[in-house]
Amino acid sequence: MKRIITVTPNPAVDLSYHVAGIRPGASHRVTAPLSRAGGKGLNVARVAHQLGHRVLALAPYGGGPGAEFAAELEASGVPHTLVPVAGPTRRSIALVDTVGGETSIFNEEGNPLGSSEWQALAAVVVDALSAQGEDAPGVLAASGSLPPGAPADFYPALVRLAHDAGIPAIVDTSGPGILAAAEAGADLLKPNHHELEEATGEADLAAGAWRLIGLGAKTVLVSAGAEGMLAFNHATPDGYWRARLPEALSGNPTGAGDAAVAAAATVLADGGTDTRQLLRRATAWSAAAVLMPAAGEISPRYAELEEQLIISWEDNR
Amino acid sequence: MKRIITVTPNPAVDLSYHVAGIRPGASHRVTAPLSRAGGKGLNVARVAHQLGHRVLALAPYGGGPGAEFAAELEASGVPHTLVPVAGPTRRSIALVDTVGGETSIFNEEGNPLGSSEWQALAAVVVDALSAQGEDAPGVLAASGSLPPGAPADFYPALVRLAHDAGIPAIVDTSGPGILAAAEAGADLLKPNHHELEEATGEADLAAGAWRLIGLGAKTVLVSAGAEGMLAFNHATPDGYWRARLPEALSGNPTGAGDAAVAAAATVLADGGTDTRQLLRRATAWSAAAVLMPAAGEISPRYAELEEQLIISWEDNR
Repeated sequence: MKRIITVTPNPAVDLSYHVAGIRPGASHRVTAPLSRAGGKGLNVARVAHQLGHRVLALAPYGGGPGAEFAAELEASGVPHTLVPVAGPTRRSIALVDTVGGETSIFNEEGNPLGSSEWQALAAVVVDALSAQGEDAPGVLAASGSLPPGAPADFYPALVRLAHDAGIPAIVDTSGPGILAAAEAGADLLKPNHHELEEATGEADLAAGAWRLIGLGAKTVLVSAGAEGMLAFNHATPDGYWRARLPEALSGNPTGAGDAAVAAAATVLADGGTDTRQLLRRATAWSAAAVLMPAAGEISPRYAELEEQLIISWEDNR
Repeated sequence: MKRIITVTPNPAVDLSYHVAGIRPGASHRVTAPLSRAGGKGLNVARVAHQLGHRVLALAPYGGGPGAEFAAELEASGVPHTLVPVAGPTRRSIALVDTVGGETSIFNEEGNPLGSSEWQALAAVVVDALSAQGEDAPGVLAASGSLPPGAPADFYPALVRLAHDAGIPAIVDTSGPGILAAAEAGADLLKPNHHELEEATGEADLAAGAWRLIGLGAKTVLVSAGAEGMLAFNHATPDGYWRARLPEALSGNPTGAGDAAVAAAATVLADGGTDTRQLLRRATAWSAAAVLMPAAGEISPRYAELEEQLIISWEDNR
């Protein structure tokens, strides 16, 4: 079982507060929050690690929040290599109103990295990709936003590094970064419906996905809410697979996409090439993530959920 | 000019976020917050330091938030001695809605200190109180809440340590701690009207203040909003001084009480015994704090505000 390398260029300390009734303009006394090393690539690594796969999470960290980030990640047991940087790690604050039931989220945008810090982050990726023996890499997964001022070609460069090392690359980001990753030949992109439309300008989901494959992506996995998850592959241009549950699950959708990436990464890391199998596992793990209160975990019901999936082949219209 | 020693047993990292329109239940993108080493005793030290007085701020700090706390305090230039502890320093999060104008605050309650950590905090107080020459102490000011599980007699013990060192002690806290500090003979207590009523059970402000003096407090300064600030002294049991501005100021009241304590501390540190002078300065600095956006700073208009004060003697009814 080869190692899954995740890269999270803009990680965050996720702080979740439970507040018994949020009153705007008031002062609230709260207990200490749940504090977790967050960011999409960290969630990917956590889920794959939870399911017994070998992982290595790579990320920069800095300042007081970075110390908190590193301490929690160490306690979590997820193998990692962190790159020290000057700018403090950003925070993401979730205020869970235990009376009203709503969760309000405040995401800091992140601090820029210096050019030598970008080089140091790339260097730990190169190190991980060149490891031999039991640490040999099976797949590279790069996830999430980039901090302000990031090199525009950072994710495309990671795709090329993975391919130079002979392994597939997954990119899960939003905005123009999706197009750049497609052009670099990413093996898997995983936009949701909104991200796909925003990046490609195509209101039609299938048209958007085929656009990414036209640019160079090998497989595109699109999460489309109640419509399930769709998988497009460059080798089967006549249609695509769709997977969905008989009934929609209610729960916490945060981190569901990251669980899908983790699932796809475990398939690709083992040399899997079956798009239908990849879609099944990704859909089941994504659904199992919805059942959990926090991102980066999936319910043990993932196997049972996979059995329930309705898989269909859809011809292009 | 002798040194003002401040003690903050339950400090916080104050994080202030500016959010352009808070929508409950939504996800918001925010820039990095203003991060400051906070807590009432830190605000006292900042204000006195800003006005050119010698200070030493004492506090515990721990964890990632503690690293952030220590780094900001170091950058602020306020002289300090911090005691490393295991529990992470608590956070206080302010969400300033730049559209709605409201500020919502979420105060973590703080982590307990271990008994050896309490001893270490007391030890740095003893060190500060025994300093000689230019570092000789002039007054001790203990401010704010105590962390959960604190020894009930921590503030009374600080009052006794100050008196053993021959200097006056100020205690600014809430709840039963006010009564305990009065019984220990604190030289100055500074409750606001609500805290005074809560601690003494007296709805009448003057009755509450005289109660504290009856217990052993030397001077009681009470902030009473639009009614101004009142000063009661054990040596003048027939009445009390009141100070107020001709017109109420609008602004940010957070930290106004700490500015009053800073003002009183500067008077007491120089051996001042004139209650009227102490009240004048405390009221002016408190008003000047309202004009500033953040706690721990006062407006340079403090001298002008002091000139405008209306001071009156009120006989006990």
